[in-house]
Amino acid sequence: MNDRLKEKLSRIEPYVPGEQPKGTNIIKLNTNENPYPPSQRVLNALKEIDGKSLNLYPDFVCSELKQELGKLSGAKEDEIFLGNGSDEVLALCFKAFFNSETPVLFPEISYSFYSVWTEFFNIPYKCVPLKDDFHIDIEGFMCENGGIVIPNPNAPTAIAEGKENLIKIIENNPDSVVIIDEAYVDFSDKGSVADLIHKYDNLVVVQTYSKSRALAGIRFGFAYANSELIKVLEGVKNSFNSYTVNTVTKILAYESLKDRDYFNKTVEKIKKTRAKLIKGLDKLGFETLDSSANFVFTTKKNADCEALFEYLKANNIYVRHFNNPKIKNYLRITVGTDEATEALLEKIKVYFEEKS
Amino acid sequence: MNDRLKEKLSRIEPYVPGEQPKGTNIIKLNTNENPYPPSQRVLNALKEIDGKSLNLYPDFVCSELKQELGKLSGAKEDEIFLGNGSDEVLALCFKAFFNSETPVLFPEISYSFYSVWTEFFNIPYKCVPLKDDFHIDIEGFMCENGGIVIPNPNAPTAIAEGKENLIKIIENNPDSVVIIDEAYVDFSDKGSVADLIHKYDNLVVVQTYSKSRALAGIRFGFAYANSELIKVLEGVKNSFNSYTVNTVTKILAYESLKDRDYFNKTVEKIKKTRAKLIKGLDKLGFETLDSSANFVFTTKKNADCEALFEYLKANNIYVRHFNNPKIKNYLRITVGTDEATEALLEKIKVYFEEKS
Repeated sequence: MNDRLKEKLSRIEPYVPGEQPKGTNIIKLNTNENPYPPSQRVLNALKEIDGKSLNLYPDFVCSELKQELGKLSGAKEDEIFLGNGSDEVLALCFKAFFNSETPVLFPEISYSFYSVWTEFFNIPYKCVPLKDDFHIDIEGFMCENGGIVIPNPNAPTAIAEGKENLIKIIENNPDSVVIIDEAYVDFSDKGSVADLIHKYDNLVVVQTYSKSRALAGIRFGFAYANSELIKVLEGVKNSFNSYTVNTVTKILAYESLKDRDYFNKTVEKIKKTRAKLIKGLDKLGFETLDSSANFVFTTKKNADCEALFEYLKANNIYVRHFNNPKIKNYLRITVGTDEATEALLEKIKVYFEEKS
Repeated sequence: MNDRLKEKLSRIEPYVPGEQPKGTNIIKLNTNENPYPPSQRVLNALKEIDGKSLNLYPDFVCSELKQELGKLSGAKEDEIFLGNGSDEVLALCFKAFFNSETPVLFPEISYSFYSVWTEFFNIPYKCVPLKDDFHIDIEGFMCENGGIVIPNPNAPTAIAEGKENLIKIIENNPDSVVIIDEAYVDFSDKGSVADLIHKYDNLVVVQTYSKSRALAGIRFGFAYANSELIKVLEGVKNSFNSYTVNTVTKILAYESLKDRDYFNKTVEKIKKTRAKLIKGLDKLGFETLDSSANFVFTTKKNADCEALFEYLKANNIYVRHFNNPKIKNYLRITVGTDEATEALLEKIKVYFEEKS
């Protein structure tokens, strides 16, 4: 390949997702997947899909699915945008809403895809450091900006801010779109701000089916906002790919929504296991941040958590470690089943016993 | 919404796909869908998918599917890129390969999404007019450029260029990536250039499962290129959305690939109906361009084809009309079943009888 050709190629530095190891006997606690299968309604619907009609493009409108999503938040059909996972929804939001010379703001320690998307779309950005207690520095978002993204609960810290703090940011930035990325909101007791889209015309709330709905495999995410913002977002989507959400995904997402009992039950189970995981880590001398998500962020003083991460991996237990110097002695651990949690805690215990 | 907020919103002009009318008794010949269902292997596989594992993210590697795709073109796994429909693959190719101040070139009358993607990514572009006979002007692509996109067969003309002409463009532009968009190639007797990726390091070939494979509903497209270009494309994809192709789509695409007999049979059926459609249009006084696709591009002198388009729509027969002045008296008609074709021809006949 000649140099003149090479010059025309992208040099973008991609986001690196958690590893996806294959094989049996692996305990996978590194990508915040739900340890339980999707609802039985989803499994039944999958068997009944009319495969013969897959020759046609997916439904462009999706009234039924949007109506069902609207029931959760009070949003009308034209206040809902559907995408191929919340990553796609967020990426398209960046393109749709952040067209300014002034930097976009997001927390310094947060979902590392945010800075990748700003680079992808050549959007200037500035990170706002977290406070010492790992909470979001609300005051840090009270300055001129090109837009704001707040993950709530935050990742990888798992900490959720209360509604009143988010409202402060939204109200003090009427000239900017404020995106609240609620990927993990269903595991939080502090709740969603989706119901506020009618009050604030600069608010966009993004959610996903990859975590609480146990449907990472079908790729489904969505946004709530006022109809004017949704229209702009639809235009951007239609400038990229007309049909991003496929027919099967739409059917299964709808069925998942209809089974609220199963959803509530599995979310509660994960919350209970989360408490056990935190308690177990406590006993082993870890300090764990207050978690409102389906993962915990934990550290142990005077221990090398990166070495522990490697040890666990060598023993087929995958958790997540980030190279960012500010959090390099922390591990992000997905809340799995009770059994997986016990196996993890036992292995950590053995690690420290072997070392001492 | 205040003006300072509005200023930050995207003003992009989206691509407008063909209408997706709902209801029975509609003859839909406007979006080049396949009139036949997917292979029985696909339908069977759909019933057997392990829905319980949809809690996990899709397989990141997709070795089996890539190996099967490779059998058709001689491409190795690292010479294949998978995407959420070929529109997504093409969009990401634009971002990956067109990073130059010099304009990208594509035919003036071609897939109208090309100019939308250049605007989406702020890529300069220049259209090369078609020749008077609607063929691509090969010589028009022999100048300094930032990259080249050629749809072959072209849309909406349905005309395919021979391999030797494409090779001329590829060989004369060693400093640019040349994308051949082969969305309709399976309906052409002139064949694919996918086997040339080992010969030309600047060649990218994009294909789709939405047309010949009758799987528009699952969204699947892919690209063949040398491993260096594919690596760049993967990096760009991972800067946008880590998991673009979902688990169900991957399984069904694989099954479709395994059923070559059904594929060959339905493609042959569509080609036969295409001949009948062209003959029928001939009889009604239309002139139809030589078609290598699953649609035809046709006009009738001294008739108002836009009025005919509206008449057909009012009678529940959807074909496609474009507002571009150079082709405003043409209709693009998808090749449907024999029955749909007969109904269309009959209705056109009635239209002209009523008018005379």
